[in-house]
Amino acid sequence: MTPLENRLRETADRITVAIDALLPRAQGPEARLISAMRYAALAGGKRLRPFLTLETGRVFDADETALLRTAVAIECIHTYSLVHDDLPCMDDDDLRRGQPTVHVEYDEATAVLAGDALLTIAFEILADPATHPDPQMRCKLIAGLAKASGAQGMVGGQAIDMAGAGDEGDLIAVTRMNRMKTGALISFAVDAGALIGVASEEDRHALARYGHDIGLAFQLADDLLDLRGNVTEMGKAAQKDQDAGKANFVTILGPEAAEARVRLLAAQAKGHLGAFGPRGRILAEVVDFVLDRRH
Amino acid sequence: MTPLENRLRETADRITVAIDALLPRAQGPEARLISAMRYAALAGGKRLRPFLTLETGRVFDADETALLRTAVAIECIHTYSLVHDDLPCMDDDDLRRGQPTVHVEYDEATAVLAGDALLTIAFEILADPATHPDPQMRCKLIAGLAKASGAQGMVGGQAIDMAGAGDEGDLIAVTRMNRMKTGALISFAVDAGALIGVASEEDRHALARYGHDIGLAFQLADDLLDLRGNVTEMGKAAQKDQDAGKANFVTILGPEAAEARVRLLAAQAKGHLGAFGPRGRILAEVVDFVLDRRH
Repeated sequence: MTPLENRLRETADRITVAIDALLPRAQGPEARLISAMRYAALAGGKRLRPFLTLETGRVFDADETALLRTAVAIECIHTYSLVHDDLPCMDDDDLRRGQPTVHVEYDEATAVLAGDALLTIAFEILADPATHPDPQMRCKLIAGLAKASGAQGMVGGQAIDMAGAGDEGDLIAVTRMNRMKTGALISFAVDAGALIGVASEEDRHALARYGHDIGLAFQLADDLLDLRGNVTEMGKAAQKDQDAGKANFVTILGPEAAEARVRLLAAQAKGHLGAFGPRGRILAEVVDFVLDRRH
Repeated sequence: MTPLENRLRETADRITVAIDALLPRAQGPEARLISAMRYAALAGGKRLRPFLTLETGRVFDADETALLRTAVAIECIHTYSLVHDDLPCMDDDDLRRGQPTVHVEYDEATAVLAGDALLTIAFEILADPATHPDPQMRCKLIAGLAKASGAQGMVGGQAIDMAGAGDEGDLIAVTRMNRMKTGALISFAVDAGALIGVASEEDRHALARYGHDIGLAFQLADDLLDLRGNVTEMGKAAQKDQDAGKANFVTILGPEAAEARVRLLAAQAKGHLGAFGPRGRILAEVVDFVLDRRH
């Protein structure tokens, strides 16, 4: 493993431990619901969003507890979105992170409710004084997370995707959809670290551009993976977009142009980190990880 | 119409106007999602929870804008829970507030996502400085709403209900389930008014007991209505519990004992308002409205 891969792994483990501590225990008559929440949230995954929050905050020597709890809240939102997206009425997926999806392992009603409860607890975690002593900061994080994940962010993007907008191969429409569906939460993961680190306006803007570019690069890499990957490597169904006749970056641009675009976005993303010097090294390295993922 | 009915109607209209103003406009490629959110949230209903927040706050001369925006957030949570509860994988209802449910009028995926977006915007509204100038207050409201509506509140209660807990006729189990499923949010609606009104600890406790009793009375009245009502009067399917062989207060206690219990809870609820004198009059009157509902 490279040093970055080690660091990613260590962070992922810390996040899993923190989620375990912050979700309620599965007991009482609601044990099955809580068990489903824990099943979804503790299954692992790359924990890319939490990593971005932690590493962005560390650029500014931000408080680790605030970063960690905020990263957990963001990962709860990401996890709930996967649970709902996997439902039969949405993408109808049986496999996620290499294990049966929540509605397969439990049942559909439990999957809907476990998603709702994960969404809700994200805001409960952020509102807690344990996250940050300043309530103004907690409100900023809550407002930012809600905006990034709501009707004009992640949920809106998923709705557009479900409705098949951009299926006529319109690059602008597909870009906008992806900005909402995956980009908004990735951008917020970066911004949350900058907020908690009390970054200057200038630094926040540079990081916003970094978050924008890494978000799009991530989705392009995902679309390339969808074209080339297989179920065993990905831990989820592959070539879904191809099979469904859905437009994505790769079907529109073709694989070569899509790869060129990933490389361009990656270079751009790193360029935005220039002002941070060596403090921005980990954020720069994670760009290559996103670009070169086989997972 | 009685003066109370007039006041309920006026408040319901104000809430609907406020929801209309606080939800995004249906435009852009996500228009269908936003349209479904608005369809669900603007359909009307009694707006009992917002009424409780507003009238509790008025006991303490609380700021009307803070009360109104908080009431809207609570109603967004209530509305999302109805949208998700109506889904085919849950209660599978076609009719709600006299009109087709969201998954019937739109589609299942849109209903799941519109619910998610309504849940999310509730916290966005509360985190906004426009709700209250003190971020500490906003965080308290967010924490309270999340706790009341999450895995150990409303969502947990719905999960227990879906799993059929208490179906062996256990009154304690059914009471606990209802405390979580409907009681917790009704209690928070009262508590939010007390919080914004900066009520004394003593007054908050009295109101908590009021909220507890009115919440249970409400559910008992609902179960009685389920037994006796019909689709036209209720605007939703009737006798669902009977048909499904599900235990509720009426199937366990029988209709007479259930009615006696509603009367007892109502008297108790009013008793908790004693310290407020004439300022508690509206909150006392609304108990009778809940007790005697045919709607």
